[in-house]
Amino acid sequence: MSVVKLEECRERICRELDKTVDFWLKYSHDTVHGGFFTCIGRDGKVFDELKYVWLQGRQVWMYCRLYRTMDRFHKPEILEAAKAGGTFLRKFARIMGSGGQWKCAFCLTREGKAVKIQRTIFSECFYVMAMDELSRATGDTDMQLEAEQMMEQLIYWVQVDSSGLGRPHLPGDVPTNSMAVPMMLLCLVQQITEGRGQKVAEKYRDLGNWCVQQILQHVQRDGTAVLENVSFDGTELQGCQGRLQNPGHALEAGWFLLQYSTQWGDKELQKTAISKFVEVPYQSGWDKEHGGLFYFLDVDGNCPTQLEWSMKLWWPHCEALVAFLMAYQQTKKPELLDMFSQVYEYTFNHFPDAENGEWFGYLTQEGKVALDFKGGPFKGFFHVPRCLYMCERILDDLLSNKA
Amino acid sequence: MSVVKLEECRERICRELDKTVDFWLKYSHDTVHGGFFTCIGRDGKVFDELKYVWLQGRQVWMYCRLYRTMDRFHKPEILEAAKAGGTFLRKFARIMGSGGQWKCAFCLTREGKAVKIQRTIFSECFYVMAMDELSRATGDTDMQLEAEQMMEQLIYWVQVDSSGLGRPHLPGDVPTNSMAVPMMLLCLVQQITEGRGQKVAEKYRDLGNWCVQQILQHVQRDGTAVLENVSFDGTELQGCQGRLQNPGHALEAGWFLLQYSTQWGDKELQKTAISKFVEVPYQSGWDKEHGGLFYFLDVDGNCPTQLEWSMKLWWPHCEALVAFLMAYQQTKKPELLDMFSQVYEYTFNHFPDAENGEWFGYLTQEGKVALDFKGGPFKGFFHVPRCLYMCERILDDLLSNKA
Repeated sequence: MSVVKLEECRERICRELDKTVDFWLKYSHDTVHGGFFTCIGRDGKVFDELKYVWLQGRQVWMYCRLYRTMDRFHKPEILEAAKAGGTFLRKFARIMGSGGQWKCAFCLTREGKAVKIQRTIFSECFYVMAMDELSRATGDTDMQLEAEQMMEQLIYWVQVDSSGLGRPHLPGDVPTNSMAVPMMLLCLVQQITEGRGQKVAEKYRDLGNWCVQQILQHVQRDGTAVLENVSFDGTELQGCQGRLQNPGHALEAGWFLLQYSTQWGDKELQKTAISKFVEVPYQSGWDKEHGGLFYFLDVDGNCPTQLEWSMKLWWPHCEALVAFLMAYQQTKKPELLDMFSQVYEYTFNHFPDAENGEWFGYLTQEGKVALDFKGGPFKGFFHVPRCLYMCERILDDLLSNKA
Repeated sequence: MSVVKLEECRERICRELDKTVDFWLKYSHDTVHGGFFTCIGRDGKVFDELKYVWLQGRQVWMYCRLYRTMDRFHKPEILEAAKAGGTFLRKFARIMGSGGQWKCAFCLTREGKAVKIQRTIFSECFYVMAMDELSRATGDTDMQLEAEQMMEQLIYWVQVDSSGLGRPHLPGDVPTNSMAVPMMLLCLVQQITEGRGQKVAEKYRDLGNWCVQQILQHVQRDGTAVLENVSFDGTELQGCQGRLQNPGHALEAGWFLLQYSTQWGDKELQKTAISKFVEVPYQSGWDKEHGGLFYFLDVDGNCPTQLEWSMKLWWPHCEALVAFLMAYQQTKKPELLDMFSQVYEYTFNHFPDAENGEWFGYLTQEGKVALDFKGGPFKGFFHVPRCLYMCERILDDLLSNKA
């Protein structure tokens, strides 16, 4: 990939980021009840007023991050939107659970009434991300404290006692190290410690290392596969669950590990991250017939039981772009740039909607748009802008060093 | 459709039923721990040892029904298999719930340890179906009593207090009349009362009528649509949930209503069942471009949020075949036979696996096999054989009257 080609990528990515931000600024704000609409059709029309909490938290986080770190987004309207989202979240997302512990709802009505609570940690994780980043943008230390308190709660659920999540313990339910949990916590460790000095970094060091170890346990089959679910002692689980691969998730873990290895100067971890979490999932997850990354695969080649296994989703491609570019940035190995280039071509030829802006999220295996909305229960203002933001910054760095 | 063509259909259906029964007799029995394997690959290989309880109950029911009512399946090996499945169910499926009420697990390990419990009524419903039918095949009145006791529990959850199901009541969670619930209960009313005389029929008459009323509330938009979720007073619900259509489910409700209307000689209900639950879902649900029935649709033409909305699943086609043929049997309207013929062609050209027997369950919108297993978490020995069994009997009736 030539410098000229990289310049072109940077231009396109920069333009897509602007269009994506414009789309959500224009269509997603609920100026009556606060918070963000998250179910938004291809042309910007709100097709459901439900407000999904993962996506509220992620949008607050993304707005603040753009506001804080990119000059062209350092605009009052972006900060105001983030603050309005934060106010809605603080007012409505937290619910006192049956065990006397705070839980966050998964979904709220337009007015903020809880519709559904998941028995997992993820709504709370995105709440922490939102509050921490918002405290940085506003200087509000109450929010930072709230983020830290919720973080303590999360650590308790994950490392001490998960019964407060409300899931009954059943004798046949094998304890599972599901990749999402240590990945998410590692992401939060990096969020909370970033730029807050050595003392805070040291406070979360053990947790960060624990997350890394938990993630590394997912490398199985003599290093030839990353499996989504393993046992807590790092052995393979029986059945479909144990054989499940989620290439996009492995690639996302890859760049989380790369960031962590950079922070602590851990060259060994960097090597593992690239070989096992960037190269392996690409080899196993890329569809050699139609292009694009599969959503799920079975490591033994059985058909996965998830109906959407062969679909091409936007977010694994977003994570792949970040992972390949960051891996290239750290190593300058040309084959990593080739992988980036291949995913870039597929992604920009298939996902962006030239007519209305933003990206489609769900394609068939063959690459046809299967679901045409821009926002839904799991797609919001997050993977697309985070990917474009990360790639733009890395490309800035690569191109300025080459100049 | 000529008599000769109907004869051909009957032959094919009869042959497919034999092949389907053979497949499950050969590959699904766990002779070590009892019960049935439910995750079975295209060639019969068990790819996961988990035992899904819906499918255990359904397989017991189907074996007994075939054993009791079709001479060629009145064989000891089928009765023994049903009894072994029933023993496994009675021993392992029931769990004492937190509210001191019996619940049935959703999924068990191979040895019978509970892996997952759903906060819905469906595992219990299939437990009732299994026990009632098994009591008929064996003459065991204990099982019949058990079916009736579980039925009382179900009625209590649905009509009096659902808190025993374990789902917290949340202020934004609108009470919803979801079509599956009255459909399932109506099916159980018909199961429990069938051939047991006027006194038992009268005992469940009010419940049956209540189910019918609840189902009829799903006819919306001046009779032009059947919606999957409505409010308890029969008005449309907001958002995606309220606009959701599930054509296969509506067609299944159609033939349940037709059976009920026949039992009670209700001509008005018969008319409504055919016009609203057979013709309407066919009009809205048939894919005019690629053929086949969509899985989900949004009544306003928005894109559904279910990733699998455009896929063609085996079971809506099974239900459609029964619904059209039964509607034709009752009315002799030729257009109903034309619909049957169209679905028959699509179904038999796409779903059966000529090589290994049984049917594929999941096709892309274009009709390509997307998931190739024969049994999975939601596909077992049920929709295919029930459809073939029902169609064979109706065709026997139609052809003997024509002869």
